[in-house]
Amino acid sequence: MLDELRARVLEANLEIVRRGLVLYTFGNASGIDRVTGLVAIKPSGVPYDTMTAADMVVSDLHGKVIEGELKPSSDLATHLELYRAFPAIGGIVHTHSEFATAWAQAGREIPPYGTTHADYFYGPVPVTEDLSAEEIQGEYVLNTGKAIVRRFRNLDPEAVPGVLVAGHAPFAWGRDPMQAAYHGVVLESIARMAYYTATLNPGTRGVSQALLDRHYFRKHGAKATYGQ
Amino acid sequence: MLDELRARVLEANLEIVRRGLVLYTFGNASGIDRVTGLVAIKPSGVPYDTMTAADMVVSDLHGKVIEGELKPSSDLATHLELYRAFPAIGGIVHTHSEFATAWAQAGREIPPYGTTHADYFYGPVPVTEDLSAEEIQGEYVLNTGKAIVRRFRNLDPEAVPGVLVAGHAPFAWGRDPMQAAYHGVVLESIARMAYYTATLNPGTRGVSQALLDRHYFRKHGAKATYGQ
Amino acid sequence: MLDELRARVLEANLEIVRRGLVLYTFGNASGIDRVTGLVAIKPSGVPYDTMTAADMVVSDLHGKVIEGELKPSSDLATHLELYRAFPAIGGIVHTHSEFATAWAQAGREIPPYGTTHADYFYGPVPVTEDLSAEEIQGEYVLNTGKAIVRRFRNLDPEAVPGVLVAGHAPFAWGRDPMQAAYHGVVLESIARMAYYTATLNPGTRGVSQALLDRHYFRKHGAKATYGQ
Amino acid sequence: MLDELRARVLEANLEIVRRGLVLYTFGNASGIDRVTGLVAIKPSGVPYDTMTAADMVVSDLHGKVIEGELKPSSDLATHLELYRAFPAIGGIVHTHSEFATAWAQAGREIPPYGTTHADYFYGPVPVTEDLSAEEIQGEYVLNTGKAIVRRFRNLDPEAVPGVLVAGHAPFAWGRDPMQAAYHGVVLESIARMAYYTATLNPGTRGVSQALLDRHYFRKHGAKATYGQ
Repeated sequence: MLDELRARVLEANLEIVRRGLVLYTFGNASGIDRVTGLVAIKPSGVPYDTMTAADMVVSDLHGKVIEGELKPSSDLATHLELYRAFPAIGGIVHTHSEFATAWAQAGREIPPYGTTHADYFYGPVPVTEDLSAEEIQGEYVLNTGKAIVRRFRNLDPEAVPGVLVAGHAPFAWGRDPMQAAYHGVVLESIARMAYYTATLNPGTRGVSQALLDRHYFRKHGAKATYGQ
Repeated sequence: MLDELRARVLEANLEIVRRGLVLYTFGNASGIDRVTGLVAIKPSGVPYDTMTAADMVVSDLHGKVIEGELKPSSDLATHLELYRAFPAIGGIVHTHSEFATAWAQAGREIPPYGTTHADYFYGPVPVTEDLSAEEIQGEYVLNTGKAIVRRFRNLDPEAVPGVLVAGHAPFAWGRDPMQAAYHGVVLESIARMAYYTATLNPGTRGVSQALLDRHYFRKHGAKATYGQ
Repeated sequence: MLDELRARVLEANLEIVRRGLVLYTFGNASGIDRVTGLVAIKPSGVPYDTMTAADMVVSDLHGKVIEGELKPSSDLATHLELYRAFPAIGGIVHTHSEFATAWAQAGREIPPYGTTHADYFYGPVPVTEDLSAEEIQGEYVLNTGKAIVRRFRNLDPEAVPGVLVAGHAPFAWGRDPMQAAYHGVVLESIARMAYYTATLNPGTRGVSQALLDRHYFRKHGAKATYGQ
Repeated sequence: MLDELRARVLEANLEIVRRGLVLYTFGNASGIDRVTGLVAIKPSGVPYDTMTAADMVVSDLHGKVIEGELKPSSDLATHLELYRAFPAIGGIVHTHSEFATAWAQAGREIPPYGTTHADYFYGPVPVTEDLSAEEIQGEYVLNTGKAIVRRFRNLDPEAVPGVLVAGHAPFAWGRDPMQAAYHGVVLESIARMAYYTATLNPGTRGVSQALLDRHYFRKHGAKATYGQ
């Protein structure tokens, strides 16, 4: 069971590298086994090209390392907070992919400018509030997770599978580690097209609610028609 | 006959991947045999790297599947509407290529800023009107095709081999599937250069009618001189 | 002699492809043997990946084809006008490379924003005037060459080895075909950095005359110190 | 000892090529052996793909060549000035990487817009003042080094491992040649994301001092927690 989880978490980590979202050791992916509550995550600061499934670090939902020789990703506490708050998700990726990071740095949510966006995010990609100095000086990584959870108070993390942490970078998630990676890749593409759109025509409004509904529910929910 | 059509449609689908216009399973290409009126199109949501010619789905002009085990692309009804309305075209591609999509999302037609554009598009690349809520909630995919056809009421689809669907992405076409793919690739390049041009000098006007004529008719029509 | 010229012209054509300046069959490179006055140039509309040295077309300085089965590039008359007017140059490339083309489309010369520019261009990269309707409807390709030559009335083509044709794209040249290709590649890089510079700070002025002198003469003329 | 230094300097030169920071022969990396005070640097104008460790040129801290058949990089005097003034550094890279160069050409320091920046640069990436005509006409390369050193009068080169030379391009450094290359690569990525941020939202302010402290000291100093 843990072997399979580690293998899938490794695959998600490699996917964000293959798709150009990662420079050096930046970024990390994790996955959770909801039966045991165990989380596997990339180790901290290890090069991707020599990493194996056995290097993935396994911890419980409170950050206690259960298996693994290496230190877990320094972002572990953020991942755990999201797993605790969003019971429907099974995988998370965090990257510093360039366009999503630019929107995060600019402190702007990404409006749903088109159907590519609407196919995956049912509304804007939200931005967290800035953390206070106290939150930064305290349990910063955990508090980053809490800021994300606060931002989702009135949002469904299944309908909006990602977020921009203000002044930092994106997190994306999904039902399993590979879908989380997939959402991270799609988010970067959406962010890139939204950048070109916003600079080409600063007054662009997002798509209509009707179009947002049509595209989102084409791929999600009981009436989805896309795919085989 | 159908084997050849499927092979050519596969090739066009692979060309848009090779040229970087496709992320994951986004995008699709189709072709029509005008003698039988049969259309071959990429299946829905299938990965490009394992796709074979036999996976292409064949339907008649009204969307009835004639051959193929898989579901056709969810955009089939748009393709069919274009084949019905534009008798001179033999292939269509739809992509979410990033710069053409940005212009579509910004709701701006692409002006003919230079001779690269004029070599392929005899005038601006047009944008459709937004679909109404009724059109979106009804036969949305078909209505997308109808919006394109309406936009071409006074345009020649052979002289303007592509369009931007507002808030969505481009469609391009040609005399056969590979030329449709070629036009899709050229459209993305034109869109990219036009983006840089418009942001560098927002007041740029398009080329003169004389230059548009000269370049377009250098490559098209009875007096074309380009190529062997 | 002609074999060597054709081989060098082929190499220059392949260099602009390898460096990402070419989409499909766009662009062309040529070279001249100043002893015989013979020019070798890429054939029109032929794919780069199957092209051989034997496909290069040889013409005299007045456009009469001397050797070669294929039609020469449709831009031949522009190349010939430059060879006639600029006796010091031995090779020319024409591309639609994206950033240089964007400046050409925007009708803006590229200011010498930094030392990368000053290392190769002793002053701005100039833009031609628009051609008149008569010039376009007449011998258009030749008139494009004449517009470039007019623009260089008070410029030294050895000190400024390239130009932007307004509403069209760049030409670059050098002492031989490979140096022409090299200047075409450097011009695209300069154009790209100048685009980012101009959009980041529209008020940016070019480098001082002192810096322009220092960098240009570090690599050019009797006192050059760069290289082995 | 010198063999190892040359090998490490070669590796740093190859790293900036692999990461896309180099066009043709632009850019150079060097390293110093602090025991002997000997510096190894890339030779001037030599292609990267045939370069060997034996081609690295070794000079003393005053520019006297000790070993090597080739002429050293034309930027040697800048490197030496930095080694003399910043005793803690062991390697330097100079590139014309496109986004860092754009900020240098625009004469703008790069604000710390996010945590990627804060992980490596403890404050803005500074820009030097313009050199005077006298400095340019005199010992220009040395004076470039002096301008950098002046800019760091109140800055710690270990906390800010790079600089933008106005109207020119970046220099980056580190404890050894490979870390210098790493900082050069990270600087380009930071510059790229900052470009997108600044053009997306020109009013963006940098991160708070608390966030800058938290991220910088996560990776640096006695209390660093990142990595294994």
